[in-house]
Amino acid sequence: MRITYCCTDSRPQPWLEGLSRALPDATVELWAPGAPQADYAVVWAPPQQFFDEQVALKAAFNTGAGVDALLKLRLPEGVPIVRLDDAGMSVQMAEYVCHVVIRHFREFDAYEADVAEGRWSFRKPRLRSDWPVGVMGLGVLGERVSRALAQFEFPVKGWSRSPKAVEGVQCFSGDIGSAGFKEFLAASRVLVCLLPLTPETQNILNRDTLAQLQPGGYVINVARGGHLVDEDLLALIDSGHLAGATLDVFRTEPLPAEHPFWSHPKVTVTPHTSARTLRDESIAQIAGKIRALQNGAPITALAGVVDPQKGY
Amino acid sequence: MRITYCCTDSRPQPWLEGLSRALPDATVELWAPGAPQADYAVVWAPPQQFFDEQVALKAAFNTGAGVDALLKLRLPEGVPIVRLDDAGMSVQMAEYVCHVVIRHFREFDAYEADVAEGRWSFRKPRLRSDWPVGVMGLGVLGERVSRALAQFEFPVKGWSRSPKAVEGVQCFSGDIGSAGFKEFLAASRVLVCLLPLTPETQNILNRDTLAQLQPGGYVINVARGGHLVDEDLLALIDSGHLAGATLDVFRTEPLPAEHPFWSHPKVTVTPHTSARTLRDESIAQIAGKIRALQNGAPITALAGVVDPQKGY
Repeated sequence: MRITYCCTDSRPQPWLEGLSRALPDATVELWAPGAPQADYAVVWAPPQQFFDEQVALKAAFNTGAGVDALLKLRLPEGVPIVRLDDAGMSVQMAEYVCHVVIRHFREFDAYEADVAEGRWSFRKPRLRSDWPVGVMGLGVLGERVSRALAQFEFPVKGWSRSPKAVEGVQCFSGDIGSAGFKEFLAASRVLVCLLPLTPETQNILNRDTLAQLQPGGYVINVARGGHLVDEDLLALIDSGHLAGATLDVFRTEPLPAEHPFWSHPKVTVTPHTSARTLRDESIAQIAGKIRALQNGAPITALAGVVDPQKGY
Repeated sequence: MRITYCCTDSRPQPWLEGLSRALPDATVELWAPGAPQADYAVVWAPPQQFFDEQVALKAAFNTGAGVDALLKLRLPEGVPIVRLDDAGMSVQMAEYVCHVVIRHFREFDAYEADVAEGRWSFRKPRLRSDWPVGVMGLGVLGERVSRALAQFEFPVKGWSRSPKAVEGVQCFSGDIGSAGFKEFLAASRVLVCLLPLTPETQNILNRDTLAQLQPGGYVINVARGGHLVDEDLLALIDSGHLAGATLDVFRTEPLPAEHPFWSHPKVTVTPHTSARTLRDESIAQIAGKIRALQNGAPITALAGVVDPQKGY
């Protein structure tokens, strides 16, 4: 069995060693143009040439949860794409989002500013019931984030295209623009985007949708920069309808130096760090899936197999 | 039935009105010297004269979770002290502590400093297993905080004087200085103090105990300023054994202007805001307990009755 590795943003050596240790029968190699045909691929944002040459793959494993970059490529006919299924990401995402929501709700930024000026001052405690949090996308990450927020007794709303049920979360469903979608937005003050980026969800966070959030709304984008229309967000913050935003993902990353997000007083920027791929967990998960396939499991038995029609 | 109200740090009117609404049969009055004997008292840090005069009380309800200030007074013989039992405090405490632990573990402070300088830079993800969090005190607040931390997959250790069991938490017990106490400290890197302040727990966070934390330790005090020996904390931060601290409570509050905590780069100060008394929840709880007593319930049936020997 031959495994080819082509991840453009990671140091390859620890991955190659880890995969070799986890799959001692496999030949694990760093991909280079003209490499022999492999049975499995482990990839992140490979060049088009990679898929043009690797035409015998039984499956390609994406070392992230989002496959939007991969699906822009011409893929060989019939090669299943398998994305990471949690692998230590959901807890990071829950941490990141809870940190932002708590920080905003409890006004810890304002307290820090007070303390920096030597001021000991109280703010009136806010009512949790005034701070419903809406989570867009109820996949592995969205569900975990919703549950974590519900534990802190925020009213949590969830929206997904197809109906889902999550304990402690009021779930809405329907297409973008449907009654369910609008009810979800009107019921939310804080909005967390955890959607996959597809042609349908592109620009979903725009002036029209964000204006439907409750006054004093707050936007947290931890999905993809392509979900958000940057100018619309800034216009709604500057008009006062939105209180601010925390953004971890951007249309261009790194965020260009001249982008207004860098210095906007009501926008917090982090460098796409909300949920990082954890090497050891990811290697264990991918190796386990390869072993299952080698032992005759059907591809449909694996978690995280991408439906190219849906785009996730 | 007569209820007297004597809370030195709150606006009395909304409390008096709320208690009257909740207990329509009661006469609810703001205490003043020479006031008539009441059946029940609702108090926060009353003057000694209050208890010298009010000698017919069936119970005194403290509008906070900690009764250390109250127990410094000479109380009339046999008057039960009842403290708040959660009443919306535990979720605030879980929020506060999770916010601090996540912020420190995920280095969000450092990311913010990078972004403020226009830097898009990654930090190597830390291993959760390297960040065990120890919670001192497993009462209503400590248990809720422990569970919330465990949800984020931190290894959570708990210590209490008498043995307790909390799902997902490795519990230690024994007196201060006992083997169990030392094992707890050695197993912890982040330390959260949620103890009641008693003669035994006074100064429990000192050079000896804090030095037993794992290297790179971090201290979070959300209990009482009297638990911490300020100079010992600063010495261990400055020696490098501790990475820092977040402190919400202080020996003198407001924290005096000249105190080094205000400006120490590794100490974060908040103005005793981790878990605020929520008026509506507190009134509902106290009124419910008064109704229960009026209906013949024994005092031992109430949650939050203070054992004067133990001090909590």
